[in-house]
Amino acid sequence: MTHTRTIQLNPVGWMSQLSQAEIELLAQHNDSERYQLFRICCLAVLNSGIDQDDMYALLNANQQFDVHLVRRERGVKIELINPPSHAFVEGKLIKGVHEHLFSVLRDLLYMENKYLLSSAECFAEGGVCTDMVFDMLRHANCLTTNEQLNTVVCWGGHSIREHEYKYTKEVGYQLGLREFNICTGCGPGAMKGPMKGAAIGHAKQRVKSGRFIGITEPSIIAAEPPNAIVNELIIMPDIEKRLEAFVRFGHAIVIFPGGVGTAEELLYLLGIMLHDSNVQQHIPIVLTGPAQSAEYFTVIDDFIGQTLGAKAQALYTIIVDDASAVGSYLYKQKAKVSAYRKAIGDSYGFNWALKIDADFQQPFIPNHESMAQLSLSFEQPSHQLAANLRRAFSGIVAGNIKAQSAADIQAKGPYILHGDERLAPLLDTLLKSFVEQGRMKLPGSVYTPCFQVTAP
Amino acid sequence: MTHTRTIQLNPVGWMSQLSQAEIELLAQHNDSERYQLFRICCLAVLNSGIDQDDMYALLNANQQFDVHLVRRERGVKIELINPPSHAFVEGKLIKGVHEHLFSVLRDLLYMENKYLLSSAECFAEGGVCTDMVFDMLRHANCLTTNEQLNTVVCWGGHSIREHEYKYTKEVGYQLGLREFNICTGCGPGAMKGPMKGAAIGHAKQRVKSGRFIGITEPSIIAAEPPNAIVNELIIMPDIEKRLEAFVRFGHAIVIFPGGVGTAEELLYLLGIMLHDSNVQQHIPIVLTGPAQSAEYFTVIDDFIGQTLGAKAQALYTIIVDDASAVGSYLYKQKAKVSAYRKAIGDSYGFNWALKIDADFQQPFIPNHESMAQLSLSFEQPSHQLAANLRRAFSGIVAGNIKAQSAADIQAKGPYILHGDERLAPLLDTLLKSFVEQGRMKLPGSVYTPCFQVTAP
Amino acid sequence: MTHTRTIQLNPVGWMSQLSQAEIELLAQHNDSERYQLFRICCLAVLNSGIDQDDMYALLNANQQFDVHLVRRERGVKIELINPPSHAFVEGKLIKGVHEHLFSVLRDLLYMENKYLLSSAECFAEGGVCTDMVFDMLRHANCLTTNEQLNTVVCWGGHSIREHEYKYTKEVGYQLGLREFNICTGCGPGAMKGPMKGAAIGHAKQRVKSGRFIGITEPSIIAAEPPNAIVNELIIMPDIEKRLEAFVRFGHAIVIFPGGVGTAEELLYLLGIMLHDSNVQQHIPIVLTGPAQSAEYFTVIDDFIGQTLGAKAQALYTIIVDDASAVGSYLYKQKAKVSAYRKAIGDSYGFNWALKIDADFQQPFIPNHESMAQLSLSFEQPSHQLAANLRRAFSGIVAGNIKAQSAADIQAKGPYILHGDERLAPLLDTLLKSFVEQGRMKLPGSVYTPCFQVTAP
Amino acid sequence: MTHTRTIQLNPVGWMSQLSQAEIELLAQHNDSERYQLFRICCLAVLNSGIDQDDMYALLNANQQFDVHLVRRERGVKIELINPPSHAFVEGKLIKGVHEHLFSVLRDLLYMENKYLLSSAECFAEGGVCTDMVFDMLRHANCLTTNEQLNTVVCWGGHSIREHEYKYTKEVGYQLGLREFNICTGCGPGAMKGPMKGAAIGHAKQRVKSGRFIGITEPSIIAAEPPNAIVNELIIMPDIEKRLEAFVRFGHAIVIFPGGVGTAEELLYLLGIMLHDSNVQQHIPIVLTGPAQSAEYFTVIDDFIGQTLGAKAQALYTIIVDDASAVGSYLYKQKAKVSAYRKAIGDSYGFNWALKIDADFQQPFIPNHESMAQLSLSFEQPSHQLAANLRRAFSGIVAGNIKAQSAADIQAKGPYILHGDERLAPLLDTLLKSFVEQGRMKLPGSVYTPCFQVTAP
Repeated sequence: MTHTRTIQLNPVGWMSQLSQAEIELLAQHNDSERYQLFRICCLAVLNSGIDQDDMYALLNANQQFDVHLVRRERGVKIELINPPSHAFVEGKLIKGVHEHLFSVLRDLLYMENKYLLSSAECFAEGGVCTDMVFDMLRHANCLTTNEQLNTVVCWGGHSIREHEYKYTKEVGYQLGLREFNICTGCGPGAMKGPMKGAAIGHAKQRVKSGRFIGITEPSIIAAEPPNAIVNELIIMPDIEKRLEAFVRFGHAIVIFPGGVGTAEELLYLLGIMLHDSNVQQHIPIVLTGPAQSAEYFTVIDDFIGQTLGAKAQALYTIIVDDASAVGSYLYKQKAKVSAYRKAIGDSYGFNWALKIDADFQQPFIPNHESMAQLSLSFEQPSHQLAANLRRAFSGIVAGNIKAQSAADIQAKGPYILHGDERLAPLLDTLLKSFVEQGRMKLPGSVYTPCFQVTAP
Repeated sequence: MTHTRTIQLNPVGWMSQLSQAEIELLAQHNDSERYQLFRICCLAVLNSGIDQDDMYALLNANQQFDVHLVRRERGVKIELINPPSHAFVEGKLIKGVHEHLFSVLRDLLYMENKYLLSSAECFAEGGVCTDMVFDMLRHANCLTTNEQLNTVVCWGGHSIREHEYKYTKEVGYQLGLREFNICTGCGPGAMKGPMKGAAIGHAKQRVKSGRFIGITEPSIIAAEPPNAIVNELIIMPDIEKRLEAFVRFGHAIVIFPGGVGTAEELLYLLGIMLHDSNVQQHIPIVLTGPAQSAEYFTVIDDFIGQTLGAKAQALYTIIVDDASAVGSYLYKQKAKVSAYRKAIGDSYGFNWALKIDADFQQPFIPNHESMAQLSLSFEQPSHQLAANLRRAFSGIVAGNIKAQSAADIQAKGPYILHGDERLAPLLDTLLKSFVEQGRMKLPGSVYTPCFQVTAP
Repeated sequence: MTHTRTIQLNPVGWMSQLSQAEIELLAQHNDSERYQLFRICCLAVLNSGIDQDDMYALLNANQQFDVHLVRRERGVKIELINPPSHAFVEGKLIKGVHEHLFSVLRDLLYMENKYLLSSAECFAEGGVCTDMVFDMLRHANCLTTNEQLNTVVCWGGHSIREHEYKYTKEVGYQLGLREFNICTGCGPGAMKGPMKGAAIGHAKQRVKSGRFIGITEPSIIAAEPPNAIVNELIIMPDIEKRLEAFVRFGHAIVIFPGGVGTAEELLYLLGIMLHDSNVQQHIPIVLTGPAQSAEYFTVIDDFIGQTLGAKAQALYTIIVDDASAVGSYLYKQKAKVSAYRKAIGDSYGFNWALKIDADFQQPFIPNHESMAQLSLSFEQPSHQLAANLRRAFSGIVAGNIKAQSAADIQAKGPYILHGDERLAPLLDTLLKSFVEQGRMKLPGSVYTPCFQVTAP
Repeated sequence: MTHTRTIQLNPVGWMSQLSQAEIELLAQHNDSERYQLFRICCLAVLNSGIDQDDMYALLNANQQFDVHLVRRERGVKIELINPPSHAFVEGKLIKGVHEHLFSVLRDLLYMENKYLLSSAECFAEGGVCTDMVFDMLRHANCLTTNEQLNTVVCWGGHSIREHEYKYTKEVGYQLGLREFNICTGCGPGAMKGPMKGAAIGHAKQRVKSGRFIGITEPSIIAAEPPNAIVNELIIMPDIEKRLEAFVRFGHAIVIFPGGVGTAEELLYLLGIMLHDSNVQQHIPIVLTGPAQSAEYFTVIDDFIGQTLGAKAQALYTIIVDDASAVGSYLYKQKAKVSAYRKAIGDSYGFNWALKIDADFQQPFIPNHESMAQLSLSFEQPSHQLAANLRRAFSGIVAGNIKAQSAADIQAKGPYILHGDERLAPLLDTLLKSFVEQGRMKLPGSVYTPCFQVTAP
């Protein structure tokens, strides 16, 4: 028989005060779906700092783990049963992790409440979807401090190589010296390096209120647990709202090397920026990596050039192996971002004016059928082509990682993507180069492609 | 032709960030009811510190006044057109008033939003009503700082005499020295004196975070504009939720001399405390005034004794002309309040466990019929008798002050209250003593009773 | 036998850390002069808020009082034996008083140390005297926060009448609304009223860092104990350094009605401002009081006009019964003060450029001989005449209040002041008007003049 | 002709306020010795973060550099002429460096003032020397925040190898997770690594007030410029006061691998701890390094065992390659440190009770004669032997690094150290192992010993 370890956590932040009704919502019923989601998110957060991206391993190792809410005089406590020991130092939970647990509580309750009071479907629509993204960020108290135009969103792989990781730290350091804050998807790799670097840069500039914002989602948090440096954690309900949060919340975007997921993010971004309504928008975008990773960007840049054209290429700047130049470039762009927002009277803290089409807000659920139906031809406006390419990459990510998709592929063979005569070979080349560069799997494993590109 | 003066106010606090949808709600449509309510509340707040209790005089004097919301880069600005000049010092709006304007915005939007997303009726019910009171206080960020068990609610007349006003300052000073915060209905008189006194007491104790909480409602705010010392202003939707907020939020209650309105509040409180479910509750209640006002409490105490009995009298302590004793008494009671809350595991910041019957949550609308139907007899449990007496007093307040009620009375004669043989003379005596003490009207005017008590 | 009550106070502020050598200096040796001074100052501070100006009564009532320094792990504690009970609330020392005790410790140790390391005499000289004043203010951490040009020095009587006291509160309120800080000599009356008023003004403007600076001296602190609202207490070694501190530290000066002491302060100020080197200086000076006190200023203004001339009268503005006008006037003068300091590159926090002659820095010790020798004739530059008139008034203050001087006068008759033919009657008229207005003694007592003015 | 670049810095901290007399002291006279010292220290600080330990290279590269003090309205500005560009980011001086410049000003002025007001010699004596160390730390505002018993002093080489540097970061991280602050000699290598690590640990624990204290001296600051992470910089007048500051200010000491200088520090520490008066003292001492550096500690430990004995060895704990164990060990020792300080009533912030003999306070000036005369025999108490061994190592450091000593050795041959029969071979073995491990010179250069050990 094992020993049961129980720890009660004092509430922190605004959520220390919950109403009776809210506590009811998350009270433990082992069978309730929302309770299970809450438990997994807590477990993920407690796994902070562990470099492991296998959600099932995590769950299996912690079957004895449980979590309860307990009302006490000074607010609602979270009670942990058999929490993983690596989140503790000298018997006390790391404060960053402690805060993250209450962020989980805050965001899951928010979603619950809104869904209860109204019909869930309405959140799929344009304006309402944007309002929900806004409301969750505001509710997490993220917006009032986001008016300095100094939030840099960093995207990139979570399992990059040592020299790439080191380079992300250097860029973070240069950003920190320029008093930028960092916002990422909050896992390891390119999502952690810039924060570590910026923390040192902030220390030298005596920035005590440096912000390290992690925006994640319930279905990914277990695979990419937030690093404890993240001092503002937000859990958006799905990938579409998460991506929308990044682009409306950040003031600039840096893309480090990554896998096909990173390419998906870049296509999402370009697809939006190519929309006619966004022609005046000013969002600085930098693609950067160390000298050894130069090829990654060459290949992507070529692909963008040949598919979306020079107009798309003009939206970003590639800087190779020069962290300080990345910092300087973004520093100088701030004036333009400010001028643009001022000119149209938009908020400094949330980019309301950015037009995001339904194409980018509606969830894409990849399977053999939906992948096969994707229109991958030049016979469409470039922002729609970008949207479809993003969906294709999204499907490949799922095929590589998600359990259900992987099983489907084992049963039915790889996803088939139908490209037109010009597009098919371009796509094939790009994806093969990712395989060659070893960006499809964690280093050391052999990759069996989950897709196949065919021309008509 | 008059000159138009326009002033834009920077947003303060959490509400600096509004969504597009929320701004729409309050955008100016001169005919919309909610816009009119917003305009009146703003005007009332701008009238801060003016000792005048005539809402119509206020509205007439400011017909050129208007208010708009304007979205700017750093949040939503409030634009004032022709604001009253006394809220400005050297051309700048007093900061306290500035904050109050944004509190108005926050609370009116809150009410709007909740009513839009759900059906308004549900908020009339017990649990839901309490949840709404809780949610509004939390939304106003009032709860996290309310856990020191040091919030004293002060009730009493808004138009008391000079020596009574001075005494409320002395009591406030003694409370401030003991690091108590003050919560009132936020007008002049007994609602301002304790705050001024406490501000000096706090200064001597180096309390920089002293709280002066004003809880008001849209229909009363214009007649009793919040003093600018109030540093947390909350606007509850109606008198029932306002009273519930006082008793769940405060940790002790001090009642100064006042008119029939103050008697109404006392009966509300006793009615709740007499409920069987509240027998274990510990809420210190002090009735206090200067030596010259001793008679006021003697008369009330007699009335309570003969109507609700010794059990009701045991719920409060009368202290005459000894401000320091009031402070000491409440200071010593803190341990008991803490012990009680701890024993039952209730929040320190919000008294969830207090049972408030539907009788006290449902609005009472006074008119000749409802007044005449009130059951004023000893043939009912004392907490129900208290509820009915409160309604009677509530009706008299309306008859004295509210325009519609006064017009009715002029047309149909005074309200008739039917008491049983024992109760009628007691009620008659009490009310006559209020008339004799000059507590029915502002000093200087002659009072024509709006009521008549008859025995069967 | 009486019960001994002992209380240990935790250190606050910078002085929590004392070296072994410093503790030695103030260690208790009942016979040491410096220990006695320390004990009296502590006793005075503990007497805070008591309206009594008799030092001997204070000392007699507290013969059992004693004070020790005790080294503990977290710094030096002050141990009080039998402290007066009125400084305590619910058994705990009022925090303002607590802080004042450590200010006493800080300033007395400062004086001790400097006198030990160097020869005391050097501090009598010009530059060195100014450096010492500067150094003590800096040491008390008063200067870094004094750069907003918003420190108003208020002078006036400590035993003024109720309507005058109320007026000082109103002026303080108007200054507080304009975010001015108040600096006084820190006793009751005109030294307390402006602070109480400003505290309310600050509350409305949400000024949390309002400063109430009291500058006193060891020989006066027992007679005029600092009110606990004072949140920065500084003890200068003597009256000359104290006056110099006022004029170099403040950005404007308000003079309320007072006795002959207030006249002394005004003459000190005019004497300095009339110096040729100060002709460019800009220090706003306002003489103000309620309508009933108008005569006080008429008489003084006449006297100034006839003795020092229109040039001296032009240095101040008289405002009768208009607190708001006082606030507005000083608010508008800020720009001029700033322009002047900027033009000559002087500090905003300390008026280095003001020229103060040795005549105003050297102590004047009044006795029959020194008073008789004062040159009170028109045959001297007006700033010297001002200096001599100040000395005459200083002597009369001593004759009225100080024990030794009073005894001398009883033995040898009143001080004789020799004025020339024109000056003698002017002086006589002024002083008689003070007697008639009852400003020579506390209300209720009969005044026997301690002086006699003779013409040649 | 080169372009002259001039930058004015706003004052920060307490020193924003300087008196006229103080500014005079440091006004520019190119020939004055104290001005030259000020200029060099400023230059060193501006060189922050540059990994170079050659003071002359620094001076030569910056001959056009100059620094002035300028009085302005808001305090004293520092004006830099042609400052090195690497201290700037986007044209603005790094804030950490900015603060360091004002720390230089503060400490050099402090030394000047004290030396002017009194005779310099007195500071050489025991009590007075300790008082000066205390006073400088207090003056730098370091003591009030030093009462949590969480300051860990880290010693070790400034030019260690990559794996050793990485290990110091790991230890720093573990200390930061346990909320320890770091105090070092403030150069690169083992003085920077622990700070970088702790900054990340603090971020995870949400410690915003983490302290990175650098204690240096004017003669070393140019060779080991403070890293900008250092957020409290103190410049003690000489090495003896600097070492005394470390041992009285810190609550625990960690020693990383280093050269002969690190051995000197260890012997200083053991020499003091072996004194009979310090037998009750509790100062946790840990020697730690990565696995590859184990030999370094084995050799030192052997040497200590055979010279100072098991009693000395018992004073420290060796932990190899286990950063987390170092953190845990020190965390657990806190209770003992607290118990000891409490038991004897000593300050938590400054170890007054530690006895430091004159042997350790008086400067040792190494030359051929003083080295030859050192008593290196077992015929003395062990704490004296430790003192003499420290002097020997101090001389070797000078011979290796300091210009004058190196010239002497070139002229007269190596220093001769006379050990007794047992001691000489032990010393020889230790020093040779340092040579073999390459710890006498920067990696890559060939070392010619500056010393020779002879037995009688």
